[in-house]
Amino acid sequence: MTTTEAAGLPVSESGTGETGPAGHGDHEHGVHGYHKQKSEHLKRLRRIEGQIRGLQRMVDEDVYCIDILTQVSASTKALQSFALQLLEEHLRHCVADAAVKGGDEIDAKVEEATKAIARMMRT
Amino acid sequence: MTTTEAAGLPVSESGTGETGPAGHGDHEHGVHGYHKQKSEHLKRLRRIEGQIRGLQRMVDEDVYCIDILTQVSASTKALQSFALQLLEEHLRHCVADAAVKGGDEIDAKVEEATKAIARMMRT
Amino acid sequence: MTTTEAAGLPVSESGTGETGPAGHGDHEHGVHGYHKQKSEHLKRLRRIEGQIRGLQRMVDEDVYCIDILTQVSASTKALQSFALQLLEEHLRHCVADAAVKGGDEIDAKVEEATKAIARMMRT
Amino acid sequence: MTTTEAAGLPVSESGTGETGPAGHGDHEHGVHGYHKQKSEHLKRLRRIEGQIRGLQRMVDEDVYCIDILTQVSASTKALQSFALQLLEEHLRHCVADAAVKGGDEIDAKVEEATKAIARMMRT
Repeated sequence: MTTTEAAGLPVSESGTGETGPAGHGDHEHGVHGYHKQKSEHLKRLRRIEGQIRGLQRMVDEDVYCIDILTQVSASTKALQSFALQLLEEHLRHCVADAAVKGGDEIDAKVEEATKAIARMMRT
Repeated sequence: MTTTEAAGLPVSESGTGETGPAGHGDHEHGVHGYHKQKSEHLKRLRRIEGQIRGLQRMVDEDVYCIDILTQVSASTKALQSFALQLLEEHLRHCVADAAVKGGDEIDAKVEEATKAIARMMRT
Repeated sequence: MTTTEAAGLPVSESGTGETGPAGHGDHEHGVHGYHKQKSEHLKRLRRIEGQIRGLQRMVDEDVYCIDILTQVSASTKALQSFALQLLEEHLRHCVADAAVKGGDEIDAKVEEATKAIARMMRT
Repeated sequence: MTTTEAAGLPVSESGTGETGPAGHGDHEHGVHGYHKQKSEHLKRLRRIEGQIRGLQRMVDEDVYCIDILTQVSASTKALQSFALQLLEEHLRHCVADAAVKGGDEIDAKVEEATKAIARMMRT
């Protein structure tokens, strides 16, 4: 019901970006782990945006509270699923790279990732 | 950073609805608990929509994974906060009304609310 | 694996209490909603206690981290399931009673319940 | 309130194990990441066990539902905090080791860790 409406959004400017923002790569972090999945990530996020717009419509049309809560749970789940995929790529690339490089960086990377996981769990 | 961008969205059609969709009230459920807070709810949801669009921009611009995860946590928190407010109004109105009416409806309402809470906790 | 070990615990003093601590009932709150399910609740909690003791054994025996995390998730789930049942009974009795009584108490009860739900969601 | 009661528990058999179960080390996984923090982990878990016993006492003594829910949230939080520490050590050792070794193992380890995090988030 809510996913199709994202199609009408003016997301083209971010959509065209999928071919890669060559030039303004983050040199400190290198090419991030999620680089390859970029277009998949954007597709997921646009679907979530559509869900949020669907929620606005539900509130606007006085839909029954419990049905709105069900849709909120679905959106939250979708966000957390996106976060988990991002995290997996981060561990596979950024954290693993730090381990291979050796030195202290791995400790900082692991601590940083754990804090991000803690924030995700607390919401 | 991301909240202001919601301002530019074509949300007027839902925005005007705030004055009330008089006439198509849900008779089965009566006027829902969240009726009065409607414009506040829509404001919250538009802000969340802005956050999701901010996430798309972050992915598109190759922002560092951990910073994206932080923003995902903020959006999830905002969604859960919205859900909690909706739930509070639901308990205060729909569930309390069922209790006052007497009969079996209170059992069904409480079970329904508990299931919604369980879904919210599992995400 | 871990649930049976609760059997050996010296829980008899709380076990015998199931027949009811007649006399020191909480007069401020009346007989709580969970009164009838008391022995079921105690059984659940003893099982969770057994799971926690199982976790201690796993750590002590150097079991693989991921397997311990799986068991932690199971214990957390069991705790949340217990909380949800308690909450359902609370809504069905304490909150519904306040609604029937009328007056301001329902507002206080609903706010209190919502805060408890928020705490449960944040963990 | 509930943490001190763990002191009286017959946990000595696991307590003495802290000096190390030399001989039955897990050769497949090597010395796990959490090895050094073992006694700290066991202390945490005994405290959580004490909290669960405190919950049993609360139910047995007809304590007010909401106060029990508050204690459940505290126990859940303590369990998740334990899980996060375990996970951090796992990432720092097992996952980082797999990255250094090279080959396919890092993919399997990251996938396994991500699944464990997903289970933790869903509870």
